[in-house]
Amino acid sequence: MTEATSASGPSRRRFLGVALGAAGVAAAGTAGFGVARATEPGVPAAPGPVPFYGEHRAGIATPAQDRLAFAAFDITTTDAQAVQAVLGSWAAAASRMTAGEAIGPTETAPQAPPVDTGEAFDLGPAGLTVTVGFGPSFFDDRFGLAGKRPAALDNLPALPGDALDPARSNGDLCVQACANDPQVAFHVIRNFARIGRGTVVMRWAQLGFGRTSSTSTAQQTPRNLMGFKDGTNNVKAEDAAELDQFVWVDDETDQPWMKGGSYLTRRIRMLIESWDANYLADQETIFGRRKDTGAPLTGRSEFDLVDLSAKTPNGSLVIDADAHIRLAAPKSHGGQRILRRGYSYTDGTDPQTGQLDAGLFFIAFQKDPRVQFVPIQRMLGQRDLLNEYIKHVGTGLFAVPPGLGKAGDWYGKSLLT
Amino acid sequence: MTEATSASGPSRRRFLGVALGAAGVAAAGTAGFGVARATEPGVPAAPGPVPFYGEHRAGIATPAQDRLAFAAFDITTTDAQAVQAVLGSWAAAASRMTAGEAIGPTETAPQAPPVDTGEAFDLGPAGLTVTVGFGPSFFDDRFGLAGKRPAALDNLPALPGDALDPARSNGDLCVQACANDPQVAFHVIRNFARIGRGTVVMRWAQLGFGRTSSTSTAQQTPRNLMGFKDGTNNVKAEDAAELDQFVWVDDETDQPWMKGGSYLTRRIRMLIESWDANYLADQETIFGRRKDTGAPLTGRSEFDLVDLSAKTPNGSLVIDADAHIRLAAPKSHGGQRILRRGYSYTDGTDPQTGQLDAGLFFIAFQKDPRVQFVPIQRMLGQRDLLNEYIKHVGTGLFAVPPGLGKAGDWYGKSLLT
Repeated sequence: MTEATSASGPSRRRFLGVALGAAGVAAAGTAGFGVARATEPGVPAAPGPVPFYGEHRAGIATPAQDRLAFAAFDITTTDAQAVQAVLGSWAAAASRMTAGEAIGPTETAPQAPPVDTGEAFDLGPAGLTVTVGFGPSFFDDRFGLAGKRPAALDNLPALPGDALDPARSNGDLCVQACANDPQVAFHVIRNFARIGRGTVVMRWAQLGFGRTSSTSTAQQTPRNLMGFKDGTNNVKAEDAAELDQFVWVDDETDQPWMKGGSYLTRRIRMLIESWDANYLADQETIFGRRKDTGAPLTGRSEFDLVDLSAKTPNGSLVIDADAHIRLAAPKSHGGQRILRRGYSYTDGTDPQTGQLDAGLFFIAFQKDPRVQFVPIQRMLGQRDLLNEYIKHVGTGLFAVPPGLGKAGDWYGKSLLT
Repeated sequence: MTEATSASGPSRRRFLGVALGAAGVAAAGTAGFGVARATEPGVPAAPGPVPFYGEHRAGIATPAQDRLAFAAFDITTTDAQAVQAVLGSWAAAASRMTAGEAIGPTETAPQAPPVDTGEAFDLGPAGLTVTVGFGPSFFDDRFGLAGKRPAALDNLPALPGDALDPARSNGDLCVQACANDPQVAFHVIRNFARIGRGTVVMRWAQLGFGRTSSTSTAQQTPRNLMGFKDGTNNVKAEDAAELDQFVWVDDETDQPWMKGGSYLTRRIRMLIESWDANYLADQETIFGRRKDTGAPLTGRSEFDLVDLSAKTPNGSLVIDADAHIRLAAPKSHGGQRILRRGYSYTDGTDPQTGQLDAGLFFIAFQKDPRVQFVPIQRMLGQRDLLNEYIKHVGTGLFAVPPGLGKAGDWYGKSLLT
């Protein structure tokens, strides 16, 4: 794209000359809500920016973008001021990146490192959202914040089926960068590492190459790497009542700074290649859905009723007693739901087996994991027919505070000041 | 996308009911050459199929798609017939996948594993190309093909700066799947592994999330993860004379089966994060180009003349004697050129350092690596200012035979029959 032909708002190259580092750099973010139906061949995701400021943090109810870069960071200092400075610089940088701008001017200071690494120049906003969370370990004794840890923010209990790698689990902070261009998403975690050098160090990172969830009624349900549509009945951005009931933290929280925020849990699941050698009928029994259409076994098309009590003429359940769709259904959990926002990943081959290391990077937002994700996953881990083909290899729980209110606000301000 | 709204050719779900496995399944591939300018925000890559059959293998001079999935396979049998069967099945599958179709019918045989894993149903052709190559080890004594190894196909010599990991180097076969949707590309290597089970095993694999080369004058030069436009003067698909001179193998080859094919070399380069701490002026000196515009230091815009002899008023070279742009220039190598077709990658963090494991998955096509890639890389490895910031961690050389002529042809047929 040349600047002359740009129709997508300010170019990353057309920076405003504002110095990096001050929290409160003016952000654009005034354009409309431009992400839509990104998976339709030939219909691009609108490249317009997602507003950076608002009541809720972008990247939760935002219609799920196609690509993800996720990173967890550990803090290497006990100086709370240094942590605040990084969180402020991250917010200033994110306000510009989400508007499709460079983090700062590039050519004005040749005898200094560039303030933007440059790989996302020219790529536009690409629907970028940057969502920062705080892990339980952030509230240990380093920063005097133990009293501010919400009761719902605790390391997840051991769950059946766990095969967790500590090196790819947890962290003091997390950054979820979602965009419709993977280089725009990668650019965020790479620059956050650069900005935070000396204060934070990246603990682990994950690229997600294809979204596996729809979070908007305008989006088609994508397929996971098992080839199935999973999450047809996800919580959708258009349903404000469901978001209030299941996602946004309300007055009942014990920590006022979390009001309006949400908890993100994520668990890396590894797909077992033996799935591909399994019979189609077995695959469909395991999910409880048809592979081609995504229809529940009790219907003909994707959004038909999931009838958990339907029986065959000989009296057996149409949807197996341990089918994934049954065990994950709200009906099996007193009506509880979570907002799923996961991505497929691959990390090359497993050197031990020569099989692809690939699967689902599971992300879910919710009001309280203790009554949502944990009991749901406990039942799945015990009974889900899918368990033969998956391993949970990473875990983490992070609190995502409410949205940034206006220029000058920064990630965690209401927590840290 | 519902089938009713599809405007991008046959749906992957609308398969034709042809059984998998026979080489020679009829392929569509009749639509126009539909890949164009994929990086312009808001301007999607045309989702139409790239023709599967033709004089040259698709995926070389094809305008570079945005995403890559690459895999190397080792053969685990000495049965040449079994290898031929896999190569035939791969070709049949690729002819369908590149047309945006499923590999075979999904719902007709419930008591068998699905013939397509399904994750690319609904995603269209996405400009997919599938390019298969043969490594030097394919010509050892297992299949009696030692006499058919071209002299130009030999393991690369040791080169300065090599820090190669054998587990991520070489292989009997390679598969380069390029598409504008990463899930469409991934779908290829995953299904090739499935189809080849018992005969081949995946040795290593790599996802490339952003193209770093333009191979068409219609494409904008992308940026690498150092933030620079590198490869401005790449060999372009529109220049048939350059392709003939530098890429397509001609009558001079010692092996008739290679005539019209090409050699692919690839080397994973790892970006060192200390790059980000380097001064802008140093970065620009190292490349010999401006970071913002991509202009050579002897010009004002990207495609201005690279004047290697230009001097400053005080008599020093404008483009440093060891600048990347100088050492990679055809002028420094008797006019030799290569067609670069690389991709940026990231594999999470390096557990030893906490730094991002990211960089360039370098792919280049050429007529004879002995007089093209090897001498160019030898000079770069000895002198390039960039060497402080890169490591070559993987290597491989593969012969890509000419294009498949028509339905019934398969990968390597002229070599193996």
